[in-house]
Amino acid sequence: MDYQKILEEIADEIKPLFSQGKVADYIPALRDVEPSDFAMSVEFIDGSVYNVGCSKKKFSIQSISKVFTYSMSLCIYEKSLYKRVWHEPSGDPFNSLVQLEYENGIPRNPFINAGAIVTADTLVSKYKNSKKAFQEIKRFIDEISSADITINEEVYHSELKYGFRNMALVNLMKSFKNIENDIDEVMKTYFKQCSFEMSTNELAKAMLYLANHGTHPLTNKKYLNQSQAKRVNSLLLTCGHYDASGDFAFRVGLPGKSGVGGGIVAIVPKMMALCVYSPKLNKQGNSLIGTKALELFTTKTGLSIF
Amino acid sequence: MDYQKILEEIADEIKPLFSQGKVADYIPALRDVEPSDFAMSVEFIDGSVYNVGCSKKKFSIQSISKVFTYSMSLCIYEKSLYKRVWHEPSGDPFNSLVQLEYENGIPRNPFINAGAIVTADTLVSKYKNSKKAFQEIKRFIDEISSADITINEEVYHSELKYGFRNMALVNLMKSFKNIENDIDEVMKTYFKQCSFEMSTNELAKAMLYLANHGTHPLTNKKYLNQSQAKRVNSLLLTCGHYDASGDFAFRVGLPGKSGVGGGIVAIVPKMMALCVYSPKLNKQGNSLIGTKALELFTTKTGLSIF
Amino acid sequence: MDYQKILEEIADEIKPLFSQGKVADYIPALRDVEPSDFAMSVEFIDGSVYNVGCSKKKFSIQSISKVFTYSMSLCIYEKSLYKRVWHEPSGDPFNSLVQLEYENGIPRNPFINAGAIVTADTLVSKYKNSKKAFQEIKRFIDEISSADITINEEVYHSELKYGFRNMALVNLMKSFKNIENDIDEVMKTYFKQCSFEMSTNELAKAMLYLANHGTHPLTNKKYLNQSQAKRVNSLLLTCGHYDASGDFAFRVGLPGKSGVGGGIVAIVPKMMALCVYSPKLNKQGNSLIGTKALELFTTKTGLSIF
Amino acid sequence: MDYQKILEEIADEIKPLFSQGKVADYIPALRDVEPSDFAMSVEFIDGSVYNVGCSKKKFSIQSISKVFTYSMSLCIYEKSLYKRVWHEPSGDPFNSLVQLEYENGIPRNPFINAGAIVTADTLVSKYKNSKKAFQEIKRFIDEISSADITINEEVYHSELKYGFRNMALVNLMKSFKNIENDIDEVMKTYFKQCSFEMSTNELAKAMLYLANHGTHPLTNKKYLNQSQAKRVNSLLLTCGHYDASGDFAFRVGLPGKSGVGGGIVAIVPKMMALCVYSPKLNKQGNSLIGTKALELFTTKTGLSIF
Repeated sequence: MDYQKILEEIADEIKPLFSQGKVADYIPALRDVEPSDFAMSVEFIDGSVYNVGCSKKKFSIQSISKVFTYSMSLCIYEKSLYKRVWHEPSGDPFNSLVQLEYENGIPRNPFINAGAIVTADTLVSKYKNSKKAFQEIKRFIDEISSADITINEEVYHSELKYGFRNMALVNLMKSFKNIENDIDEVMKTYFKQCSFEMSTNELAKAMLYLANHGTHPLTNKKYLNQSQAKRVNSLLLTCGHYDASGDFAFRVGLPGKSGVGGGIVAIVPKMMALCVYSPKLNKQGNSLIGTKALELFTTKTGLSIF
Repeated sequence: MDYQKILEEIADEIKPLFSQGKVADYIPALRDVEPSDFAMSVEFIDGSVYNVGCSKKKFSIQSISKVFTYSMSLCIYEKSLYKRVWHEPSGDPFNSLVQLEYENGIPRNPFINAGAIVTADTLVSKYKNSKKAFQEIKRFIDEISSADITINEEVYHSELKYGFRNMALVNLMKSFKNIENDIDEVMKTYFKQCSFEMSTNELAKAMLYLANHGTHPLTNKKYLNQSQAKRVNSLLLTCGHYDASGDFAFRVGLPGKSGVGGGIVAIVPKMMALCVYSPKLNKQGNSLIGTKALELFTTKTGLSIF
Repeated sequence: MDYQKILEEIADEIKPLFSQGKVADYIPALRDVEPSDFAMSVEFIDGSVYNVGCSKKKFSIQSISKVFTYSMSLCIYEKSLYKRVWHEPSGDPFNSLVQLEYENGIPRNPFINAGAIVTADTLVSKYKNSKKAFQEIKRFIDEISSADITINEEVYHSELKYGFRNMALVNLMKSFKNIENDIDEVMKTYFKQCSFEMSTNELAKAMLYLANHGTHPLTNKKYLNQSQAKRVNSLLLTCGHYDASGDFAFRVGLPGKSGVGGGIVAIVPKMMALCVYSPKLNKQGNSLIGTKALELFTTKTGLSIF
Repeated sequence: MDYQKILEEIADEIKPLFSQGKVADYIPALRDVEPSDFAMSVEFIDGSVYNVGCSKKKFSIQSISKVFTYSMSLCIYEKSLYKRVWHEPSGDPFNSLVQLEYENGIPRNPFINAGAIVTADTLVSKYKNSKKAFQEIKRFIDEISSADITINEEVYHSELKYGFRNMALVNLMKSFKNIENDIDEVMKTYFKQCSFEMSTNELAKAMLYLANHGTHPLTNKKYLNQSQAKRVNSLLLTCGHYDASGDFAFRVGLPGKSGVGGGIVAIVPKMMALCVYSPKLNKQGNSLIGTKALELFTTKTGLSIF
């Protein structure tokens, strides 16, 4: 199959959609992106790579970082992590407090904000403080993406300053004793991990360990065992897109994770990792064009886990 | 009617109930009260007073303070306050976030925590900072109770340290832009007002302006106009006891407000103000014996607004 | 005080509001009323009566019937009724299923639909079948209103035909075993009681027993004891207007009950009963002009329980 | 791989679990099953079959029928069906009314009861009445399972008699106009489809069209196109087990559907269909041993879509 041609067709077919959607505007730093940017990268487990669009351009990875921190925490804590973060779709928006209150501060899954904040808390517990936890997160993502990634300080400080909803979530969980560390340490870690900037090219590479049952195919380093990797992938499928997760599975049919910065990562098990970027979002807060591009990709290639 | 005799009968009849209920234990400073304490004070608008039990003993007024700060804010802001705090019973526990999320950060009424936090915010806006707002609150309560009241510093610092649920509420409302000031300034004001200590004797006197349509009957000073005073009283009846407000109206039949410290204030319009204290609480967080004592009082006297 | 003059002033002052609100249109029979109708009746416990507008015109009493059936059931079952219907404001719309599901089929209060359906079920249990239960309800209302009231068959059959929401409520409660009788028997009783037609003049008279602590002042017949009557009145205040109950108490300050047909009844304890009619409704489903007329009445007379 | 040996190992390993779980007891007909029954069937798309346990024994398929009726409706209505039933996990129990009320009577997905009732309604609309709709459903399942299946009349009549919760659901949706036909016609269809009895052997065969992208591999008849088949499979993965769907995906990693009768079907795309039966249920209402057996199967074979 000519994957380069397929990517180019997709880049062409999504053009009429640029009038739709809305760039994230809850903080100024995210608002000032180029709304017509588009990039898509496909990286096979054999190392071959296909790109289209601005695939070297860095963008804010935001919630995509939750995949990496959850992988780290799952490897450290294994089953004991399950008691603090469940595996169920929430059926609610990404930042809802309702379910969290009814369910005693246990988040439904690691890919809604509350779940990712608990995950950050587990890493602060492991590495003693926010600074070291953050260093380890950076080290992990650098390694899996063969990059030297940096955070966008403006995004980070904006999140800290305007992150009232996330502060509500962490305080609610702390009141239920599901946060072990000082709230400031946890939230610095969480907001920093969301402020990393990466390109589609780097993110596609970073996802390869999940496409290859836990072992990075290019370095042969094992990050998760096969069973853990499958579990992360099942969570991506059922919970990776907030209350549009079912629709994403229905239309795209691949495990994936979106970020409010406009990126979406996905994998085809035993075959490839993908990343698409386009900053205008649909109503559920997922990249509108990114979702469509992935749908076109699975339609054109016939690839799907179903 | 021999009110002194009635109070003494009540003090006798509630004795078998001391084995029931549970002292508030969410912070150590509240836990260490004497569980068998009981006091009841009745103050008529003509100045006559009846007391039973430890009616000079100071206890933590907690949510009873919400009546006074709401009166202050209503007097300052009048109808513009209604947009930021509604007048409806919530049907939910005192610290629930669920309704607040569904209703865009507008609290149902001023007597649930969220509503009292917004009220504190309005006073910080009016008096510029937490320190001055607090001074004005103290001045107001001192004046209506003819006392020089103080806060319990241990309670205050415990609330600040463990008040995660309230921090969740204020952050959630800030995310909906229903908090104008810095969160720390607002919460210092709120936690301080809850940490005042007063006796049943002082609190009964402090409520007289609401029993007398807004004007303190002993000093003739007008704090609210007649219409405002009636509105505060209607709110006390419909919303004064969280999700047991209906039951309190059903059993006692008077406008009242409870605090988790074990106090309950109530009024008989155009006639008297009452305060009862007993620290063991029922499941809804209201004084178990206090509620029963008021029920006995209205049964014995036939007083009720219905 | 010249009550006739006050009623005439009110009739004059509400005129500009006739452009607002919306007649109930969920069934054709209710839709075809005269939208500019207005009537108000005041009946004192000494028997003196004041009327304005079309005070002899019959309208569909709808939910006002819940006051009468609850009084009947309370008299029969006393405290055992409390286990099947609570006394708390619901904080939700009149026909919501949400709370009912979370709270195991026990309705919050007798004045939301679910609570009135349980009340109807208790009367079917007492009188063996729908037909006899209905006869007793009619007998009761006839007696307290000195009238011979009839149901509007068209309204009744429309309710039966389109009452899907109420059928959902009763089935949900039956699944929680809080309905004892056959669903059809219960719903016939409930829909029939809602289909009675009465005038403001008749309804004001019918409410006098609640204004007079349970005993009808004109016949001296006792329907409820003093404590029961006060409890019904407290429920009217806290729960009589669905999720606008707090607002009604705040603005009007009297125990009252509205019906979707455009009627509102209210009482001033130990003094009078009132009824107002105007079919256009506000957003919460209560008569828009009726609510305003009662607010004007308490402002002009200074009457209020607070 | 020796699949027969794997099935026998599983049958052996699940034995200690027979003390756990609880047979469905909401109707007598379901209560009277043999609690220690176990059967598992695997059918490959090449026609090879492996069985263990009582694989010819008929049991009540209950909610598994939802897979077949949704396939039929999807084939008839295609995208127009999406407006009446969504594709999102509900995050709530299988019979919850809460979400349905908040979301205007549109069920989250076709595999909760509300969604399956709407699906039944679409088939009644297509085939004009309950009787013909039911005949078509039977014809469809007969054909895909090469069987002549029957309903258990006792189960059917019990469901009709005690199905108050489902009656609440259908009435609520009818009030939102998301049910087109007479409620009785719809519910007869729905309760009949749930009362079919089949063996694991028959159900495994019946699922082969979904394992083979819409075309039955043994007859070559096309029931769904490739895209539709993938969509049904994605729905099975995200929504097939109510509020334990995420956990099932996490542990088993295959699209599947459970029924309260104790059956679970699943598929491995392009490879095989499975069915397991054991009537004792876990807290979420899914077969406890069935879930464990499928987890053992994917662990032993390494098969998983992730």
